[in-house]
Amino acid sequence: MSITLTILGCHSATPRINAFPTSQYLEINNCHFLIDCGEGTQRQMRKYKVGFSKINHIFISHLHGDHFYGLVGLLSTYGILNREKELHIYGPKGIKEVTLLQLKISQSHAKYKIIFHELTSRKSELIFENDKVSVSTIPLNHRVYTNGYLFKEKEKPRKLNMLNISGYSEIGKADYLNLKAGKDFTLASGDIIPNTELTLNPSKPLSFAFCSDTSYKPDIIPIIKNADLLYHEATFLSDREDLAKKTKHATSKQAAQIAKDADVNKLVIGHYSGRYKDISLFKKEATETFKNTELAEPGKVFYV
Amino acid sequence: MSITLTILGCHSATPRINAFPTSQYLEINNCHFLIDCGEGTQRQMRKYKVGFSKINHIFISHLHGDHFYGLVGLLSTYGILNREKELHIYGPKGIKEVTLLQLKISQSHAKYKIIFHELTSRKSELIFENDKVSVSTIPLNHRVYTNGYLFKEKEKPRKLNMLNISGYSEIGKADYLNLKAGKDFTLASGDIIPNTELTLNPSKPLSFAFCSDTSYKPDIIPIIKNADLLYHEATFLSDREDLAKKTKHATSKQAAQIAKDADVNKLVIGHYSGRYKDISLFKKEATETFKNTELAEPGKVFYV
Repeated sequence: MSITLTILGCHSATPRINAFPTSQYLEINNCHFLIDCGEGTQRQMRKYKVGFSKINHIFISHLHGDHFYGLVGLLSTYGILNREKELHIYGPKGIKEVTLLQLKISQSHAKYKIIFHELTSRKSELIFENDKVSVSTIPLNHRVYTNGYLFKEKEKPRKLNMLNISGYSEIGKADYLNLKAGKDFTLASGDIIPNTELTLNPSKPLSFAFCSDTSYKPDIIPIIKNADLLYHEATFLSDREDLAKKTKHATSKQAAQIAKDADVNKLVIGHYSGRYKDISLFKKEATETFKNTELAEPGKVFYV
Repeated sequence: MSITLTILGCHSATPRINAFPTSQYLEINNCHFLIDCGEGTQRQMRKYKVGFSKINHIFISHLHGDHFYGLVGLLSTYGILNREKELHIYGPKGIKEVTLLQLKISQSHAKYKIIFHELTSRKSELIFENDKVSVSTIPLNHRVYTNGYLFKEKEKPRKLNMLNISGYSEIGKADYLNLKAGKDFTLASGDIIPNTELTLNPSKPLSFAFCSDTSYKPDIIPIIKNADLLYHEATFLSDREDLAKKTKHATSKQAAQIAKDADVNKLVIGHYSGRYKDISLFKKEATETFKNTELAEPGKVFYV
């Protein structure tokens, strides 16, 4: 019942020393996901002690090099590590062809199965769920087909109100599952005890929204509404709003406006353009609109 | 008239912290070459201050991921840097298809021209020459089609023997080019002054041989004979000669034997398997056979 987000890389593609392209490692409700995989991601995973074998699902936002050039290296490494588990890769149409050609040409025949889920829809869609988490796309607006991803914990069962339950000798452990599921309890006398008397509301399911790369796109707000944690790209400051518009990126202020209008709890920004030497300016600009903003930095971990 | 070899990466593909796959930056007779380009090479280039724009020729030994997965990232970066100069890429057949598909799918349309020179020959062949340097292939024996590369300075012009020349008032500056080219000088009297009286032998052209990845292959010796600098892979120590044979790699001792039999001046070894924690053991083993051996390490520079 928690979110831990580790930033592996958070810079834009502009070349510079100590810049790492986008990649994030997400633990949510004990599920482990990799989001984007720029060149060098596997090295960052090792550096920040991300367990390679924990990851069974990789989500690629779009097919610009700084978001996926590290994928084939990671897949080859899984081969060297004798991975046997299936690996699911979600990303835009085309990712399968380019990945398989690279693996074929480098004779990195995977003994494990890679299952590609190629995305083409322009509408938000549910693309993964298990009993703990669901993942939906967040259609973004960039120079190429791009999706963000919304990771949501599943609704949790109601909590047993043991104080009240203990007042009814007829209620046994065998009944707990029904109570957690929200059912009322019928006594032998025929009287009905409403579920709300026997249980408490569960903790709210947590959610994390990843939005990169994109121009300012307010129509994503209903999708990411009330997210506990939002990562939104902020490639430029407002001084280059024109360039942001032209290259279909967002400014720090725009990222903060999205966070404010979506009423999220915390905003993390990243994907900084190389033209800015002092990234603290991104935080300064964003916090004027949305106070609870943090800067993504390689190795930084955010807990919810 | 010199060689400067900068090691950018020198580890095998086995995943580990602080391992960098093969890449080397070679300056020879004022020409600049990149040899192999594993994932993260462009980052290593930045770290060790290799001028991106100096490189016009990239030589890829073989299409295992740890030798070329960093190529497309570098090519994309050249695009971001608005490169205009032609770039020549030498490597096994297949490199063009996989590289162009990646560039196409990531919409990294290069404004500069990339010229691929795909290699298929099993015999040593001259693949590049200008007025300063020639490059020939060194056919190696690995699990996939692999070439090493021999970089050789061109024969230099003869040096003017100014002391002797000054004894002949008839010889002017306009004649120097002919003298450097080895021509005799005819005086007005008809007497011929032999070139050897007017010039000195030029310094010996230097050469560097890059041999990775390969099993022990003594038939490369005539090609690399007397090289000033030899890089030869040494993935294993002799304790795992069986594994070296099976995976078509060399041991440190075998690399040293090649250096000894080819009578090279200096040997640099690298491509260490991750199973060895103490790489000084590679040097220890090699120097028993060939004394002038050095270990490749990221950022290390070798001068000839």
